[in-house]
Amino acid sequence: MNMPASTVVRLDEPALFTDLYELTMAASYVREGMTAPATFSLFVRRLPPERSFLIAAGLRDALEYLQDFRFSDRALEYLRSLDRFDVDFLSFLHNFWFRGDVWAMPEGTIVFPDEPLLEVTAPLPQAQLVEGALLNLCHFETLVTTKAARCVLAARGRPIVEFGMRRAPGLDGAIRAARCAFIAGAASTSNVLAGFVENIPVTGTMAHSYVSAFTEEIEAFRAFSRSFPDQTVLLLDTYDTLVAAHRAVEVARELESQGHRLAGVRLDSGDIPTLARQVRHILNQAGLEYVRILVSGGLDERDIDQWVRDGVPIDSFGVGTKMDVSADAPYLDMAYKLVRYGERYVLKTSPGKETWTGEKQVYRFRGADGRFCEDLIALRGEPAPPGALALLEPVMQAGRIWRPHPRLGDVRRQCADMLASLPDDVRTLRDPRRYPIRYSERLVELQDSLKAAIPAI
Amino acid sequence: MNMPASTVVRLDEPALFTDLYELTMAASYVREGMTAPATFSLFVRRLPPERSFLIAAGLRDALEYLQDFRFSDRALEYLRSLDRFDVDFLSFLHNFWFRGDVWAMPEGTIVFPDEPLLEVTAPLPQAQLVEGALLNLCHFETLVTTKAARCVLAARGRPIVEFGMRRAPGLDGAIRAARCAFIAGAASTSNVLAGFVENIPVTGTMAHSYVSAFTEEIEAFRAFSRSFPDQTVLLLDTYDTLVAAHRAVEVARELESQGHRLAGVRLDSGDIPTLARQVRHILNQAGLEYVRILVSGGLDERDIDQWVRDGVPIDSFGVGTKMDVSADAPYLDMAYKLVRYGERYVLKTSPGKETWTGEKQVYRFRGADGRFCEDLIALRGEPAPPGALALLEPVMQAGRIWRPHPRLGDVRRQCADMLASLPDDVRTLRDPRRYPIRYSERLVELQDSLKAAIPAI
Repeated sequence: MNMPASTVVRLDEPALFTDLYELTMAASYVREGMTAPATFSLFVRRLPPERSFLIAAGLRDALEYLQDFRFSDRALEYLRSLDRFDVDFLSFLHNFWFRGDVWAMPEGTIVFPDEPLLEVTAPLPQAQLVEGALLNLCHFETLVTTKAARCVLAARGRPIVEFGMRRAPGLDGAIRAARCAFIAGAASTSNVLAGFVENIPVTGTMAHSYVSAFTEEIEAFRAFSRSFPDQTVLLLDTYDTLVAAHRAVEVARELESQGHRLAGVRLDSGDIPTLARQVRHILNQAGLEYVRILVSGGLDERDIDQWVRDGVPIDSFGVGTKMDVSADAPYLDMAYKLVRYGERYVLKTSPGKETWTGEKQVYRFRGADGRFCEDLIALRGEPAPPGALALLEPVMQAGRIWRPHPRLGDVRRQCADMLASLPDDVRTLRDPRRYPIRYSERLVELQDSLKAAIPAI
Repeated sequence: MNMPASTVVRLDEPALFTDLYELTMAASYVREGMTAPATFSLFVRRLPPERSFLIAAGLRDALEYLQDFRFSDRALEYLRSLDRFDVDFLSFLHNFWFRGDVWAMPEGTIVFPDEPLLEVTAPLPQAQLVEGALLNLCHFETLVTTKAARCVLAARGRPIVEFGMRRAPGLDGAIRAARCAFIAGAASTSNVLAGFVENIPVTGTMAHSYVSAFTEEIEAFRAFSRSFPDQTVLLLDTYDTLVAAHRAVEVARELESQGHRLAGVRLDSGDIPTLARQVRHILNQAGLEYVRILVSGGLDERDIDQWVRDGVPIDSFGVGTKMDVSADAPYLDMAYKLVRYGERYVLKTSPGKETWTGEKQVYRFRGADGRFCEDLIALRGEPAPPGALALLEPVMQAGRIWRPHPRLGDVRRQCADMLASLPDDVRTLRDPRRYPIRYSERLVELQDSLKAAIPAI
């Protein structure tokens, strides 16, 4: 049942999923004979103020994209119609397939600014052409997985359900968001297609429209529980939440008399902490301690964190819109930059956008308590420091995926292990400490020598 | 060359693109025999604080989705595997196709809170099942078209280029965002696949990596202009913008000597207003008044508005990330609510989420100056007030698209006309006036009578 994402959202002409300038630059490289190997680093320049760490994601889809990259006749015909490209370049594209190497952090890895999520080494035009798609795929998934991880941390073990399909950005955005949330530790999704494609558990409750389609609220509750006697979660706020809670008690008793149990109730609006306490009281007074309370309605990790700290009796959280668009930090300053061309190390020094040169490796150290304590960004060729975890590994060689992508459940476990190893004061939502990153001496020396040479460029 | 979006991003199992609860609710409706016609309204409850109007978009894709909606054997097999649905319901789904009617505002229409963007009337299980997809498609496109219109208004006639592919949310999100920006009045996109599929002009410049791939910056400039002597836009900020501007002058003169003209330069970082003035001065001193200045780098309508007001010499704007994710307002409070079932008008009264009952029509009035001055939200059956524009029209009947969707250029003109008719003090970015919306007497009376009856529900 588990299928690659490329079968879900299939671009008819994936090679055209690129910015025009990638093609014009590639055309110029080809004309100038600049086809030596180039290395590009994909990384985040700085964290949004609201984030203290990121979780790398998107690699699976990025590698499949690279492996399948081809220009069809129809795509070439369109490019010819633009009247910009000569026959030599169109013929180059006709024979093009991606033959590069990729090093990358596994999905689910915690990542900090300046640390490459992935590095591509390929003939310059090849490495250039894939920029847009790689950024698109890695950016969105890293963004949403990070946001979802914050929700999961805030819930401190209470299940999070991904509810965001309707306000997720686009169709594949919704499916990717469900996958990201699951990697980050969400228990399930409401998105059936994501469940089908990614093999994620699907769950759901009922909508206000269901309740209002019946002439009486309690008849709606009864009808739903007739169809799903062991899986019913009643939505309480279509009219009046507390009145509905008493009706839920009635239906729960009817279910008990038939040997079933009401699974839960959902609160979706109003003063959630107060209502949750009142509804819990109504349920408990009726001996229905087993009925769970799910809340939803525009939540994010701040609400969850506050309510959990305050001991509000909530059993699980439906999180949608704000998670799927990462509402408080809706984009990352992610870049894909040339760091080496042929034998020459390169960088850019634009104000606020200076990049680190060279192919890199990131080493992560654990302290005496077993938690992560420091990262070292080094050149890839430097000797590995003893006892450190090397985060980047080879994942594609000569355009072929090096080994099957880990199963989603394994990615999810990797992410959970990483989060558990992050120091409490770094992963906290409130005034987190900045995680320490060092740059190796060799990297700093190389960077400084290149910067000194810029006036001559 | 113009193809429907469904051929670009094709979901293998579109009918599964739904929240699980739509299926469980539909199963219950079928079991209870509740298959009378139901009407759902899709609307936005309130504007984000940063918005004074919205522009409706997404209808084309929504109607294609509805028309193609089917459950394949593979989809049904998956649903069976969930162990929730009985044979009767699976057989109902097997024979399912959408046979409803849809009224909608054309894409490119300005829309305000509580005004339906579209209304679906279909047998209750059908109208319910399509909720998630309709919201997903209309939400994202309305969000981005609105943001893009603000950028276009701020630029006051200077071209906007959509640059956001790399940080747009997902693959189809990027293509949809390019389409939305074009509807809103953007001149072109950098996204080649969007150009191919939607027949939008594509443009582009060069990246920092291009410049840094050469050992000398001016050699990069020369090489690019060799390949594209009449279409070269030189990126100036890889190292030092002003040094690069002098190099651009040199290359422009070389181009002139060969009978060509440098098209432009791009500034992507640093203090843009100061650099733009300095670069304009350098170019003009060299007699290169015709060389255009394009700026990019994390802009949105606020920057554009300020720079245009300040007379900064900028000829066009490349706008990406913040437009494609609508960064300052990354989601809308958009809902799809049951307003009538069979002969019965319905509503919900959840705190902060009360909805207006009944099938509706929206009338827009023009004042003596020809600009829009007021909207009236009425029941669909009410007599049309004289001289008002009725915004909702029938677009689908019995599941078939009623007439071909307008061409993208026509949608774009519709949007431009609408924006031109909006009063200046409503469409301004700074402290806009709230556009007046009235509710018809009959609608208010009906709403009040339903609310009075709720305690009995």
